[in-house]
Amino acid sequence: MAKLILQSVLFQGKKQDILISGKKFAKVGRPLTERDWDKAEVVNCDGLAIVPPFYNGHTHAAMTLLRGYADDMPLQQWLTEYIWPFEAKLTAKDIEIGSRLAVLEMIKSGTVFFADMYWHREHTMKVVEEMGIRASIGVTIAENLGTSGRIEENMKFIRNHCHESERVKLVVMPHSIYLVGEKLFKRCAKVAHEEGLVLHTHLSETIKEVRDCKKQYGCTPVELLDRYGVLDDNLVAAHCVHLTQNDMSLMADAGSAAILNPCSNLKLGSGVPKINQMMDAGILLGIGTDGASSNNNLDMHEDMKLVSLLAKANGRADALPAGEVLNMATAHVAMAFNVPAGVISEGFLADALLLDLKNERLNPLHNLESNWVYAADSSAIHSVICNGKFVMRNRHVDGEEDIVKEANACALEIASR
Amino acid sequence: MAKLILQSVLFQGKKQDILISGKKFAKVGRPLTERDWDKAEVVNCDGLAIVPPFYNGHTHAAMTLLRGYADDMPLQQWLTEYIWPFEAKLTAKDIEIGSRLAVLEMIKSGTVFFADMYWHREHTMKVVEEMGIRASIGVTIAENLGTSGRIEENMKFIRNHCHESERVKLVVMPHSIYLVGEKLFKRCAKVAHEEGLVLHTHLSETIKEVRDCKKQYGCTPVELLDRYGVLDDNLVAAHCVHLTQNDMSLMADAGSAAILNPCSNLKLGSGVPKINQMMDAGILLGIGTDGASSNNNLDMHEDMKLVSLLAKANGRADALPAGEVLNMATAHVAMAFNVPAGVISEGFLADALLLDLKNERLNPLHNLESNWVYAADSSAIHSVICNGKFVMRNRHVDGEEDIVKEANACALEIASR
Repeated sequence: MAKLILQSVLFQGKKQDILISGKKFAKVGRPLTERDWDKAEVVNCDGLAIVPPFYNGHTHAAMTLLRGYADDMPLQQWLTEYIWPFEAKLTAKDIEIGSRLAVLEMIKSGTVFFADMYWHREHTMKVVEEMGIRASIGVTIAENLGTSGRIEENMKFIRNHCHESERVKLVVMPHSIYLVGEKLFKRCAKVAHEEGLVLHTHLSETIKEVRDCKKQYGCTPVELLDRYGVLDDNLVAAHCVHLTQNDMSLMADAGSAAILNPCSNLKLGSGVPKINQMMDAGILLGIGTDGASSNNNLDMHEDMKLVSLLAKANGRADALPAGEVLNMATAHVAMAFNVPAGVISEGFLADALLLDLKNERLNPLHNLESNWVYAADSSAIHSVICNGKFVMRNRHVDGEEDIVKEANACALEIASR
Repeated sequence: MAKLILQSVLFQGKKQDILISGKKFAKVGRPLTERDWDKAEVVNCDGLAIVPPFYNGHTHAAMTLLRGYADDMPLQQWLTEYIWPFEAKLTAKDIEIGSRLAVLEMIKSGTVFFADMYWHREHTMKVVEEMGIRASIGVTIAENLGTSGRIEENMKFIRNHCHESERVKLVVMPHSIYLVGEKLFKRCAKVAHEEGLVLHTHLSETIKEVRDCKKQYGCTPVELLDRYGVLDDNLVAAHCVHLTQNDMSLMADAGSAAILNPCSNLKLGSGVPKINQMMDAGILLGIGTDGASSNNNLDMHEDMKLVSLLAKANGRADALPAGEVLNMATAHVAMAFNVPAGVISEGFLADALLLDLKNERLNPLHNLESNWVYAADSSAIHSVICNGKFVMRNRHVDGEEDIVKEANACALEIASR
């Protein structure tokens, strides 16, 4: 098995040699033996610190093609006049190109995993495989986003392809309670359980969704999922902006995870998630960026800091310390999607960021964790490791200029179609 | 006069040649003549776009030494157990070293001006002069932060030094309504008017400040300044988190400027500024970062995006378009501090950022302004120009490694004193 030694890397306050064997951390915090050094690739990490990379709990990668295409307008106008007409023109090839730009951006901002939801997923999957990171790709199930034949096709795709790749998993993704009815939602949950896949959905994103649900079903969206019997520890729900206290208790008791997407929620005017109450209720909280058309980037660091600020905003400066919000952006998301990663520890998958300790924002070094969470931006990231391999070295990703150029040309051409 | 031509730089949607003559923009958007090209330094800007740099409306530069020293605790504990004891140990030399790290960080994140407030200001002024950017340095006046002799000394300093430097100005800075009484506040305003200096103060930062003021004076802090007769278009007030509708009307009518510091306000649990109401009232709004001990960086881009998100958060996706919030972080602050800059236009001071159009977050290029405001971070900044001269080229600032190293050693040594 390939061996990689990160020599003299700063970890937990001291310089250490860390051994990666194959795709996992093999020795962390223990002295290496002569045998460990034998035939290992040794990377000098003097002046670098190791921290867990980001795991993006909810996004739509290929939507990077729509970055900056429409902003600063009411949701309905934004969707109907700009986003949907643009999306209607997207081909499978476009989605491949957009996904490649997205994965590049993620790597450069320290993300090695994303939970995706979009069309032509095979093309996104191919890009993730090629570029060396991880993803849980949502196979979207929706009743009015296609024919019922499409639903069958998607279910078949799940059954046939869910265990093909080591780094790229599928998740069953009933779009939302407003696009998927009881029978189909239950079927999705059943398929997910049978195949050992996560069930991922949009939940309580807007006031309108909650109001419409109450009108139609007499209960909140979370209560509806509970009624369906699908609110359990296999469910990962994105957004969760408008939860009631009862919703929070239900989710916590069920062990369902919530993925906060504050930047998208604020920018679209959807509201501010009740982070403190959700924490107090005991819900497993992760963080995602949502798509680049509403964020407008895929920078987990930015959403992480925003979660932290929103939790503290009103008289709670001691709420959500740096280490906890970092967990939400790393280990919690990995946990929610059943990826044994997000922690620099023996036996976990060897995913990591190497931070450049010369970066001005990581200094002075009173507290690396605080500096990383509250002060840094992507410029502090020197290298990115996923599954035991470098996917970025010294801020460079192979082929990045071509990826950017191709995506730009593609997006401008779509806009002119 | 030295001439600099930015050749083929992207500006307002097309590639242009921009002429800088001495410290000002001389030709923007007009064809250059043979005479313009004669003896000019020509910089090839193909692949770069020009945008205004940031002007930081309120900070405490030397507090970078305290970055990460204490976080995630109640305000009183933070101040009394950590910040004040650390600050009590700071020497003039420490403040020079901390200011140098701060100015480096500002340049690297695209800021060319800051309004400062701290001690040993001569040392901060020296650093700003050396490093080539601008500042309005607050000479702090406070009744219980020193003896009355200190007040006289500071007033004398203002009279003697306020017109010495082109790039480094003084501002008269009565600390706040709780540290400066009526007589002294009026005297500060008088000195400011006589010397043609801006009057800068902290205002309505916390609920406690407002409550205490109401108890002591029977009115809000803004009303108190109005009563003192110092609420006019020469006043720049930092924070302004807890304004009433009447406060906003008073400030708007008086032409006083407010500097929003949302990142600091949220992190310290002080509250969320009422951005939309302040805009609706017609107050000139600028943005600042506050000090690095409460932010924890000096990145204006981060605060700019946060202002934008907070304005949109609750059902107002069309509030505060990208161009407007960019103005708040650039031209508005320059205007508030009487610096004829912040606009890429003939006759204005030649301050600018060159953005790297290859940066993944500036692509696809549907809308550069949107990409810059909503998607980018400091990694997109290629070069920084201040007063007609490069202060950063191709992401490098002269001496940066030494500045970082010295500041780190200094801060850790202070902590161990």
